[in-house]
Amino acid sequence: MATEPKTLNDMFIDTLKDVYYAEKQILRALPKMAKAANSAELKAAFEKHRGETEGHVERLAQVFEIAGKAARGKTCDAILGIVEEGKAVMEDYGDSPALDAGLLASAQAVEHYEIARYGTLKAWAQQLGLTEAVSLLDQTLAEEVKTDELFSKLGVGSINKSAQPKAA
Amino acid sequence: MATEPKTLNDMFIDTLKDVYYAEKQILRALPKMAKAANSAELKAAFEKHRGETEGHVERLAQVFEIAGKAARGKTCDAILGIVEEGKAVMEDYGDSPALDAGLLASAQAVEHYEIARYGTLKAWAQQLGLTEAVSLLDQTLAEEVKTDELFSKLGVGSINKSAQPKAA
Repeated sequence: MATEPKTLNDMFIDTLKDVYYAEKQILRALPKMAKAANSAELKAAFEKHRGETEGHVERLAQVFEIAGKAARGKTCDAILGIVEEGKAVMEDYGDSPALDAGLLASAQAVEHYEIARYGTLKAWAQQLGLTEAVSLLDQTLAEEVKTDELFSKLGVGSINKSAQPKAA
Repeated sequence: MATEPKTLNDMFIDTLKDVYYAEKQILRALPKMAKAANSAELKAAFEKHRGETEGHVERLAQVFEIAGKAARGKTCDAILGIVEEGKAVMEDYGDSPALDAGLLASAQAVEHYEIARYGTLKAWAQQLGLTEAVSLLDQTLAEEVKTDELFSKLGVGSINKSAQPKAA
């Protein structure tokens, strides 16, 4: 049986599933990262972002509903790879003053994956005329960008200095 | 034998190796993406970025030299996952008008991984006092940001429209 070629709408749904899966992985990773972090400021930032991430999952569920599909995840190799690298940092640098700098780097790799995906989803929702979805995706995108900026400030402001207690 | 805890400098070198490996994977992926793309504009963008990527590998080799280490890659699970998702797009959407939109999305996921990593490396090089490395990493970071912006413009300007030949 010949099948119709897949559409942009199919790709939008596939990518929603990818990000839905990714957000759920992030929900599981953030408490581990908060627990591992030495800096109280970094712990607090990870915990705050976990709360925001719950909101992102909820918004994705709304976008699935707008698109007329059940909210479902699909294995996302990219986020698994990024989270795996974060675990390696915790193992290799567990007793190092550079641990927090590594956790922050991992968290920024996560944020940038999400910024790429939400930027794409927002552009596709615009093309597909899913106006309400555009607004929801844009809200999450803005939070991811803000979180990444906060992480950059934390890095330069304190974490990277603590990572290197003795001057080089 | 007790070993010293690892340092920020160790983490800098580990991350250089991660990005060096990632850039080499990207060098291999871009020609395949250019070949698969239907849009002449997108093909040209991928080919142009392949040329830039050769420059990024060269700059990383210089940063290794500044840091007194041999240029070597280390398996980067994140880029492998991102490239794997790009391959899945080519397989699942090979005959779809949405293919180019998917290729562009994959390329933007790659760009954002690199933006995260070069941003981190630049901040760490600053902390470590590797002034020449900061400048090299910043040049590549700026090119990755510019490429991501170009990809966004291509998406909204033409690729996403072609992805959906019939109005929804």
